[in-house]
Amino acid sequence: MTIFAKTKGIKGKMKKFKLPKGFFANGIHCGVKRKRKDLVLLYSEKACKIAAIFTKNVVKAAPVILAIKQLKKNKPIRGVVINSGNANCMTGKRGMEDAKKMTVEMAKILRVHKDEILVSSTGIIGEFMDMRPITKGMKEIVKGLSADGTQDAAEGIMTTDRFPKISERTFTIGGKKIKMVGIAKGAGMIKPDMATMLCYILTDANISKKALKVALSESAEKSFNSVSVDGDMSTNDTVQLLANGLAGNVMIKEKGKDFENFKKNLNSISDELAKMIVLDGEGANKFVEVKVKKAKTKADAKKIAEAVASSLLVKCAVLGGDPNWGRVASSAGASGVNFNPDKIEIILDGVVYFKNGKTLPHENRKRSSVFKGKDVKIEVSLNAGKAEASFFSCDISKKYITLNSYYTT
Amino acid sequence: MTIFAKTKGIKGKMKKFKLPKGFFANGIHCGVKRKRKDLVLLYSEKACKIAAIFTKNVVKAAPVILAIKQLKKNKPIRGVVINSGNANCMTGKRGMEDAKKMTVEMAKILRVHKDEILVSSTGIIGEFMDMRPITKGMKEIVKGLSADGTQDAAEGIMTTDRFPKISERTFTIGGKKIKMVGIAKGAGMIKPDMATMLCYILTDANISKKALKVALSESAEKSFNSVSVDGDMSTNDTVQLLANGLAGNVMIKEKGKDFENFKKNLNSISDELAKMIVLDGEGANKFVEVKVKKAKTKADAKKIAEAVASSLLVKCAVLGGDPNWGRVASSAGASGVNFNPDKIEIILDGVVYFKNGKTLPHENRKRSSVFKGKDVKIEVSLNAGKAEASFFSCDISKKYITLNSYYTT
Repeated sequence: MTIFAKTKGIKGKMKKFKLPKGFFANGIHCGVKRKRKDLVLLYSEKACKIAAIFTKNVVKAAPVILAIKQLKKNKPIRGVVINSGNANCMTGKRGMEDAKKMTVEMAKILRVHKDEILVSSTGIIGEFMDMRPITKGMKEIVKGLSADGTQDAAEGIMTTDRFPKISERTFTIGGKKIKMVGIAKGAGMIKPDMATMLCYILTDANISKKALKVALSESAEKSFNSVSVDGDMSTNDTVQLLANGLAGNVMIKEKGKDFENFKKNLNSISDELAKMIVLDGEGANKFVEVKVKKAKTKADAKKIAEAVASSLLVKCAVLGGDPNWGRVASSAGASGVNFNPDKIEIILDGVVYFKNGKTLPHENRKRSSVFKGKDVKIEVSLNAGKAEASFFSCDISKKYITLNSYYTT
Repeated sequence: MTIFAKTKGIKGKMKKFKLPKGFFANGIHCGVKRKRKDLVLLYSEKACKIAAIFTKNVVKAAPVILAIKQLKKNKPIRGVVINSGNANCMTGKRGMEDAKKMTVEMAKILRVHKDEILVSSTGIIGEFMDMRPITKGMKEIVKGLSADGTQDAAEGIMTTDRFPKISERTFTIGGKKIKMVGIAKGAGMIKPDMATMLCYILTDANISKKALKVALSESAEKSFNSVSVDGDMSTNDTVQLLANGLAGNVMIKEKGKDFENFKKNLNSISDELAKMIVLDGEGANKFVEVKVKKAKTKADAKKIAEAVASSLLVKCAVLGGDPNWGRVASSAGASGVNFNPDKIEIILDGVVYFKNGKTLPHENRKRSSVFKGKDVKIEVSLNAGKAEASFFSCDISKKYITLNSYYTT
């Protein structure tokens, strides 16, 4: 994993990430949060096709409920306005009115239809929005819209994130240069917690709506849904993929090599952003990949990988640099998936700890190096089939406890 | 909740808990663990009926697999031998041979049949048992068997527990005095982790085998299974209820007021031991009860209560004395149960934070006292039906992280 170094780099001195053709962005401080940037606008000069994924949490924030409704109308999208500092969730009718007001006012300023503007919010749950700074900020933010506004936008959506998360790819389809830029925020421990994940991926590719949807769905399953999954999603989780077609390529359909190329780049961006989110887990020091192999089904593999990656005791073992493989076995066994424990293999950082129903002798375990580095790999092979899946996680630290103990008040 | 004070009391100076008629116990240091007591024997001079519950983890320790097999033979039980320090789990054939050896050797010393002796183990996973100290210890332990041996036994099963857990009741059935004494161990955060729970409840009541089973199953559901549940159980979890009938009462059948009386006392002991386990959660400072009311079904209520009680962010909020009711709403919404968020009520320590789709104004929230005490109560009312359920939990602390980061090595 080279990402850790990369993100460190990003934290230090950020290069300029140029947006895809026709996209403009800005991030400013309007006053929802103290001090930091808290309002973001993503804007396209041409109407965009959109694919989106929202939280499956029963408790959905007002902007999420509104966006789901808007997208059902199947209209193109011109922009997304995002505030951090307040999630506008559990805020009832007033919250919904505030979310609508944000789309209406932003659309008016941009001279587009209100359904062409989506809203996202992230921050504290259960507080009414203070609309004055937002209304004022929306008038302000358009003035600074820029094709270089990626970093400002990435900073503006941050909550307890330690660094902005940006990923970009440039590739060619039918001789045309395609640009794809994604920004994301995460923080919290993500899973098993409720930290909100927001992600916006913008591209100038010309692609059919169906292809866009299929690509995002496949890509999210292996990335965002392998760090923060379904049932455990927060009230505001949102992933949106916008394509304005300005690259001028022949339209990408949902099959063939152009589509594969598009997906490869989308997967790569999603993967990078998802890993950045894990690495930015509050107080996290180590990146953990749990890989489950030779399972009967992919669903089995993913369920076990998730159980191991989410186990607090495993996270503690990783923090302590302690290759406690028994905790891996136990959390796998508690995942709800049936398997034969005598047949499994447990490999930590390349060292086999359990195989053929036997624990390896102490002297062969090389305990000195295992779990000691910044990148930790946990492999569980079930020897029951051919399916495999990975789940990404981080260690837990005392800092996480501190960060999350005194947040509201 | 008065238990916190009680357990504190127990920690300081323990009263003598006399075992039910015909039961004898002892706990000694034999050398599995360093320094502390690590071998326990529970013995009845008369054959016992037994009801038992074991972990549902796919990965089961050898003594658990063995006990399940033995109990299928439907024979009476004379004793249970328990070691702490080694879980004898993921130890393959050799582990099973060691577990069997323990029953055979103990049975020989006690001059009973090998199937009349059960074995439990708790401690590190994946290490072979060192049988020498156990073999030696079993010869030694019988010498000190005593009707007052409750505390020694309760201490001997401890792993990272801070205090021994004992609960006793005396009641009358048909004019006969019935005694019931339970010991337990827990530690770890219990849920969502893999800390082993062991519990043994001994009684001299004369009760039918069926009644014994029904009573334990109902009682465990509301106690042990409401702190450490099914899929999340450890590899060694065991709850056993032994009855030797020496109180001489007319046999209790699975219906009627005698049965209700028996159950009431069993529930009370189970409840107290389960709460002690929560209070002894590693590094825990506060006791949390999550109560879900007015749910459509009991299963819904329990699922939500468990989700809220297990949320790391809720635990952090409790630690910080921060009434972050949004985290309660969000974890309830992520539980997988469908409900209408606008209809729910969230009450923290008696103060209504959310009702009728509205957040209460700041000044009415009395934030000063809520979540600040040692006993925290979280209530969620769904207004969707009449079912309710509770789940018990504790806060998380930095000490928990420390305790669990450097355990094996």
